[in-house]
Amino acid sequence: MKLCRFGPPGKERPGLLDTDGRIRDLSAHVTDIDASVLAPAALAELSKLDVAGLPVVEEGVRYGVPVAQVRKFIAIGLNYRDHAEEAGMAIPTEPIIFHKAISCLSGPDDDIVQPPHSTKLDWELELGVVIGSEAQYVSEANALDYVAGYCVVNDVSERAFQMQSSQWDKGKGCDTFGPIGPWLVTRDEVADPQNLDMWLDVNGERRQIGNSKTMIFSVAQIVSYCSRYMTLQPGDVICTGTPPGVGMGMKPEPQWLHPGDQIHLWIDGLGEQRQKVVPAR
Amino acid sequence: MKLCRFGPPGKERPGLLDTDGRIRDLSAHVTDIDASVLAPAALAELSKLDVAGLPVVEEGVRYGVPVAQVRKFIAIGLNYRDHAEEAGMAIPTEPIIFHKAISCLSGPDDDIVQPPHSTKLDWELELGVVIGSEAQYVSEANALDYVAGYCVVNDVSERAFQMQSSQWDKGKGCDTFGPIGPWLVTRDEVADPQNLDMWLDVNGERRQIGNSKTMIFSVAQIVSYCSRYMTLQPGDVICTGTPPGVGMGMKPEPQWLHPGDQIHLWIDGLGEQRQKVVPAR
Repeated sequence: MKLCRFGPPGKERPGLLDTDGRIRDLSAHVTDIDASVLAPAALAELSKLDVAGLPVVEEGVRYGVPVAQVRKFIAIGLNYRDHAEEAGMAIPTEPIIFHKAISCLSGPDDDIVQPPHSTKLDWELELGVVIGSEAQYVSEANALDYVAGYCVVNDVSERAFQMQSSQWDKGKGCDTFGPIGPWLVTRDEVADPQNLDMWLDVNGERRQIGNSKTMIFSVAQIVSYCSRYMTLQPGDVICTGTPPGVGMGMKPEPQWLHPGDQIHLWIDGLGEQRQKVVPAR
Repeated sequence: MKLCRFGPPGKERPGLLDTDGRIRDLSAHVTDIDASVLAPAALAELSKLDVAGLPVVEEGVRYGVPVAQVRKFIAIGLNYRDHAEEAGMAIPTEPIIFHKAISCLSGPDDDIVQPPHSTKLDWELELGVVIGSEAQYVSEANALDYVAGYCVVNDVSERAFQMQSSQWDKGKGCDTFGPIGPWLVTRDEVADPQNLDMWLDVNGERRQIGNSKTMIFSVAQIVSYCSRYMTLQPGDVICTGTPPGVGMGMKPEPQWLHPGDQIHLWIDGLGEQRQKVVPAR
């Protein structure tokens, strides 16, 4: 299934994509796409619905964050070998965990607001993993059982903020720095999370091209690893690192985002995002 | 007011401390100590209650996290000059922001679970700040208007996990690493947040002695600063750094926590916490 939340910010309703790509309204069946929907049994129940009988939602409606009540927004740093190299950082021997503030979550096509004093605004196309069941010390072999599904994430970053101290979090969690969606694609629809093509364009020029097969740590390894350092809860989102091609790594000079820039992201089977950069009000 | 939440984990009810130090049950007046209660107007309304008329709660009840639905658990690194020195770190010129996973939140007297493979478990006594109103780009002069109140926090840390990569978050957010409380003491009861004595004992020996007046960045500066990098939301908790005396800084050798150790924390006017370290199951 491709689950989503649609409608104005803060008033999103639960939806499901039909085979024609139209959103069907799930409001009569679930209150929201939240922890109560993400467990395997609940997803199985939802999959029995007669999709053709659900109300069709008008075209052009806004997509919101596809999961309600996200509690943790975890990120993995430098998880593609080539990206670590372009960033001039050592290849990690264990996943590097940091957090994005959950107040940065935004819809997949919402504007990205450049904060005041921002000078090095950058993009990061990432495969997002949505946790379905509570996970604590789970093995790599079983880790994917705890995953509800996958989504596209733009791990928007402000490099000056990120690198100002030793801790990256400050440059990772500004408001609107976490576009997620359009859909939460359930795990059964993703044959192999380690073989997903992906790309990101800025103003129509291709900046990132990658495939999740070049990840240093696989999704299963990441979920297992994170679950050793904190209990993962249904609705938690983990973004799994970015392939090469971020602005910071461009030659001969880094290239940063500015108001008016258009970003377009795509991951095979997970849909696309389009954001415009706007100045802070 | 001293607000609290009491009862078994996950079933806490809202309470208020009377002048005799007894908990009074607030359940008939508010559903929980959450964002709806923390705004200035809501707190003012609550303060009009006839405390003597509220049901008295039996003694010895467990204290839970005094705020429900915390969304962000923000921490400031190295914010006491002497602690930065004992840690062998440079004195920061701006606050260092990182995040604790909100799944680490626990009651003030709940056990601290030493994670498997933990070898360097440490304590950090900290003044916690609870946000009352949404704060975005607030000035230092107005910052305290956005604070609902204060609480004791033990920013429990696993130094091997914390220092294994460049990013500290992994060693800061393990389950039970965030004891908070016993109370949320409203701002009107704290005459000067920059003049609070505090101490921490391990097994009856004093390890930390401090006063919030030696903070490098004041509470007002921290709230203002954080609000420039993310929207602070009602119920968000910021712990503001620890004074000298953590295990990592002890001479001639660092001293770490082990199962069976007893920790006792106190901040003037904010109450005390007592935790026991236990092994992972």
